[in-house]
Amino acid sequence: MTDMLRVGVIGAGVMGRDHARLLATEVSGARLTAIADINLDGAREVAERHGAEAVFSTGEELIASGLVDAVVIASPDHLHAGTTLAAMDAGLAVLCEKPLAPTVEEALEVAERHAALARPLVSVGFMRRFDPGYVALRKRLDSGVDGRLLMTHSVHRNVEAYPGSPSSATITNSAVHEIDILPWLTRTPIAEVLWTAGRTTSLLPERHDPQLLLLKDADGVLHSVSMQVHARYGYDVRCELVCERASVELPNPPSLNDAEPLIVSADLTRGAAYAADWRPRFETAYRRELTAWVQASLAGTVPEEAATIDEALTTTKIAHALVASMNDGGWVTVAG
Amino acid sequence: MTDMLRVGVIGAGVMGRDHARLLATEVSGARLTAIADINLDGAREVAERHGAEAVFSTGEELIASGLVDAVVIASPDHLHAGTTLAAMDAGLAVLCEKPLAPTVEEALEVAERHAALARPLVSVGFMRRFDPGYVALRKRLDSGVDGRLLMTHSVHRNVEAYPGSPSSATITNSAVHEIDILPWLTRTPIAEVLWTAGRTTSLLPERHDPQLLLLKDADGVLHSVSMQVHARYGYDVRCELVCERASVELPNPPSLNDAEPLIVSADLTRGAAYAADWRPRFETAYRRELTAWVQASLAGTVPEEAATIDEALTTTKIAHALVASMNDGGWVTVAG
Amino acid sequence: MTDMLRVGVIGAGVMGRDHARLLATEVSGARLTAIADINLDGAREVAERHGAEAVFSTGEELIASGLVDAVVIASPDHLHAGTTLAAMDAGLAVLCEKPLAPTVEEALEVAERHAALARPLVSVGFMRRFDPGYVALRKRLDSGVDGRLLMTHSVHRNVEAYPGSPSSATITNSAVHEIDILPWLTRTPIAEVLWTAGRTTSLLPERHDPQLLLLKDADGVLHSVSMQVHARYGYDVRCELVCERASVELPNPPSLNDAEPLIVSADLTRGAAYAADWRPRFETAYRRELTAWVQASLAGTVPEEAATIDEALTTTKIAHALVASMNDGGWVTVAG
Amino acid sequence: MTDMLRVGVIGAGVMGRDHARLLATEVSGARLTAIADINLDGAREVAERHGAEAVFSTGEELIASGLVDAVVIASPDHLHAGTTLAAMDAGLAVLCEKPLAPTVEEALEVAERHAALARPLVSVGFMRRFDPGYVALRKRLDSGVDGRLLMTHSVHRNVEAYPGSPSSATITNSAVHEIDILPWLTRTPIAEVLWTAGRTTSLLPERHDPQLLLLKDADGVLHSVSMQVHARYGYDVRCELVCERASVELPNPPSLNDAEPLIVSADLTRGAAYAADWRPRFETAYRRELTAWVQASLAGTVPEEAATIDEALTTTKIAHALVASMNDGGWVTVAG
Repeated sequence: MTDMLRVGVIGAGVMGRDHARLLATEVSGARLTAIADINLDGAREVAERHGAEAVFSTGEELIASGLVDAVVIASPDHLHAGTTLAAMDAGLAVLCEKPLAPTVEEALEVAERHAALARPLVSVGFMRRFDPGYVALRKRLDSGVDGRLLMTHSVHRNVEAYPGSPSSATITNSAVHEIDILPWLTRTPIAEVLWTAGRTTSLLPERHDPQLLLLKDADGVLHSVSMQVHARYGYDVRCELVCERASVELPNPPSLNDAEPLIVSADLTRGAAYAADWRPRFETAYRRELTAWVQASLAGTVPEEAATIDEALTTTKIAHALVASMNDGGWVTVAG
Repeated sequence: MTDMLRVGVIGAGVMGRDHARLLATEVSGARLTAIADINLDGAREVAERHGAEAVFSTGEELIASGLVDAVVIASPDHLHAGTTLAAMDAGLAVLCEKPLAPTVEEALEVAERHAALARPLVSVGFMRRFDPGYVALRKRLDSGVDGRLLMTHSVHRNVEAYPGSPSSATITNSAVHEIDILPWLTRTPIAEVLWTAGRTTSLLPERHDPQLLLLKDADGVLHSVSMQVHARYGYDVRCELVCERASVELPNPPSLNDAEPLIVSADLTRGAAYAADWRPRFETAYRRELTAWVQASLAGTVPEEAATIDEALTTTKIAHALVASMNDGGWVTVAG
Repeated sequence: MTDMLRVGVIGAGVMGRDHARLLATEVSGARLTAIADINLDGAREVAERHGAEAVFSTGEELIASGLVDAVVIASPDHLHAGTTLAAMDAGLAVLCEKPLAPTVEEALEVAERHAALARPLVSVGFMRRFDPGYVALRKRLDSGVDGRLLMTHSVHRNVEAYPGSPSSATITNSAVHEIDILPWLTRTPIAEVLWTAGRTTSLLPERHDPQLLLLKDADGVLHSVSMQVHARYGYDVRCELVCERASVELPNPPSLNDAEPLIVSADLTRGAAYAADWRPRFETAYRRELTAWVQASLAGTVPEEAATIDEALTTTKIAHALVASMNDGGWVTVAG
Repeated sequence: MTDMLRVGVIGAGVMGRDHARLLATEVSGARLTAIADINLDGAREVAERHGAEAVFSTGEELIASGLVDAVVIASPDHLHAGTTLAAMDAGLAVLCEKPLAPTVEEALEVAERHAALARPLVSVGFMRRFDPGYVALRKRLDSGVDGRLLMTHSVHRNVEAYPGSPSSATITNSAVHEIDILPWLTRTPIAEVLWTAGRTTSLLPERHDPQLLLLKDADGVLHSVSMQVHARYGYDVRCELVCERASVELPNPPSLNDAEPLIVSADLTRGAAYAADWRPRFETAYRRELTAWVQASLAGTVPEEAATIDEALTTTKIAHALVASMNDGGWVTVAG
């Protein structure tokens, strides 16, 4: 069928498995056809779970197989650049997990060879750009309703980091998400940076944790980013925009309200938006309902969790008992 | 292709359009092939937007067309039962928007004819069963960690109801969601009900608003449901489970945290869960990123919002400037 | 001195000790002069801690002593009416803890004899009328800004009730606070009531818990009150006013913001007020600072927690170091 | 009477009036006897409202009057040092509003002369040390339960600053509260500081706003302080302690819960404490109730807002109607 994209996932680790699951079950228009991992058993397990046809031990073999139109690269970081170049040479669409490359030199080489292509093939997986919270922050900034942006404060905390990585890994592995998203939010490049830190945790030897990063952009906006990779208490990402007339924050805990999942402080009030109707509130429910129904229908059955006709009939009976109570008063027994 | 479900949507109103959009763009395994609406122009608009092949002015024609394996019924309520029966006769899978039928009699007839089928074909669209919040409430109840459930308090408020509907429509149109979800949460049927109300709003003539519904289940658990269809301030759905050792609530505003999107009051603390890592926090972002990438790749381009190679390269440069500041101290200018 | 009220506290239990402490340390214009308790050692302990001059084993002796202008009655409930009458006969001002009497008959007798006095002497200790949250709710209702009140939902939960009390004690001991405050909020009397309940906790034998109380007032406003005296998880009091155009709630956790300690849902936003300046935010801090300073000054010293001159000098030095950094750039060492 | 402190307030501006009000109505053990202000009419107005006996046009006259044992200094900043010295010479207890002096030199002179006294006389009004939130933060740090403190993040925002003050006033007038409280929380002195800022608001000409202050203490703990004196949206003070195993924050909006008015993130949960019983929840209500009752009793009446005997009687009647409903079922009319 012409309108289905055949996708291969390269790397069957934590991120690769997650991408494969989403592609196979939650994404429209894609067909997961191949998995590659140096651990072939791991690749086979993912392929079987999600109905992919083929497995390979290297990304290069998968790319050369003719079974894919596009690849998601979720292999170890040092392989990203090489695999991306191979996929580019084969003319495949690429979604490469961050980082594009561990060094500036390698990233630069990929960028230069990509620039020479007739049309762009590669995207890099900084996924926050698709998060409803960050999308709403950007839209709010674009609106100008709060005056000009003056300063931002971000927090990025992971539960646990394994010993052995240097202090710089906090920047190159974790803070890169902040480094990507802040200029994306503001549409303004970062001009200069300052690293600072104080006392370090006793729980993670040989790595400075937490760290405080300052980034100043070309318009003079100052960004502070509080990084902690071994925070123990939970995965916690926060962002506050300090504007001339308001402060706007991502909520904590994060919100599902697609209408505007933000905490806005303005006009002597700190508030969160209500949806105007049920659709943004239950968007996820509708999507999962349809997904479960499509999968069950393909399997010749009905989704286990969906309401059956008999349950819907019971619901109608209870509703009618309530109407009877409204009309006649008093407790009404529901008909069996 | 054998593993794609050909779906027709019957009804191109608010809900029908939303189902069509989700099926075409956010649901894996489905192909939207036909739309039916008595307003053929409306059907055509939806079909064109989402690439469906055919339009019909009635559900019956769509069902008879041979173009669909399954139908979503989102037509006016009084047509639900008839269209469901027609689809059942044609052997199609059905997702019927609630209510199955406006009267107990019609619902009963559909239920009886469905019971005579060799295998189930019909599900009814009480979508809350797929909402992460209600799913988490049910899982929590099943765990028994808070002791037995004793009482529940729900709130269901719509922004606006149009004049003309009777007070009973609050029950049959809106409260049915509560009537469906409460016994689903508790796995226990409702035994008796009491309707009550007090002062009514002056803003919605001829309809009693708000109303307070009491439902008692077969285990004696008492459910209170505060309904208000003309609440003006926002769409607001709340649910609290009062257990022997804890109170558990849906958060307000609603939460995206799939790990456990609940507010739990227990042991002298009122708390919300943190995710243990980034995946539940950014599940939506990953899904949307992959969806945008698949669509763009099919169109021979890259997704507009995704990070380009040049942006990824810039991110690497900023990261390296921060590492330089870490090593040498002071502000570091980002290389151009 | 003519403008100091000599107060005796009758009853040295939990509430009596708390009233004595507040009168001695946090209330202006009062002098705690006498304590009465059948347990004379308990009375002596309280008297010594707070500098009261005399102790008595009965309220009647304290009233007759000539040492008090006013009494707080915090003895066991069945003594309230008798002691109140004795104090009235002696012409003393009375603050009687709730309930005024356990039976309607006794309360009626006290009310009738009080009505015959030349001027009122007795107040009853329903303290919620002085809570910033309830005061703000009432003020908001009076303003009419949210339209007419239609319905209210309250929650009242205690951590633990001791076995032995009957189910009616939930009403007469605990729910009386709700029964007092709801008509006070609305300025409208309660006309009729309905008690209901469902499954009861297994943790408190012989008492129905939780209970759901419905009260309807003379204007038709319906109040629901969810009572649970053995909730285990925490002391939790909530109140929501459902109006024609907004919902207004006490915050959870409770707020200190005297400007408007409420959560207001209106105009598609759920919000809390910010103070306009530092005074409401730090009202408690200023009050406690002055109290500590007055007590320390009376004792010929300075309050332990207050900033000393040397600390204030250090603060100035740090401020000047920051100004130097502002002017000259870079880190500045604070002068020793 | 020997145990009442005669207090004079010097300065009848915003802060002086507030101190006078609190001393006269909310503080035990004090008698407000004199007010001084160069604007004698303003001084008279405050004196009359709160029953002070005398007014003076200068602090020196008030100090020399023999009418006070202690003074609160709330005059313009440049007068603080001189008036403090005069009060010290007269042997009076002093609570001096911050700053002690505008310059290090003047503060140093006062400190040196104070050090030579036989006993301390002067406290400086950094009131946050008495705020329940900061007190709870310090107690939590002292407990060590969250591991060592690593970093802190504070926010301090005022609604409005008047043009004309220099950028340094943000530090010397506003940030001094942060500079005082941070080493008080940690019991560790500040060692070095860094001032930084980025884009400045267009709404406050000639002053850099916002500013970001970094303070590092003698143990290496790094404090970031985000200052904004013209934030427009509300008065907002925040503080977060980043520890080895938890993050602890002041709640926003601020909380009344004296048991522990903090937001604690630990063990994959973000939580706030419930009180264990009603006393911390209603501490403010009890205090205000007693204060109103004492004042009314001194005036020969009962407090307007307190429950009357008739209201208490009605409460008892409603409670009995609910018990009747419990026993007999159905709605029960409240006896007239």
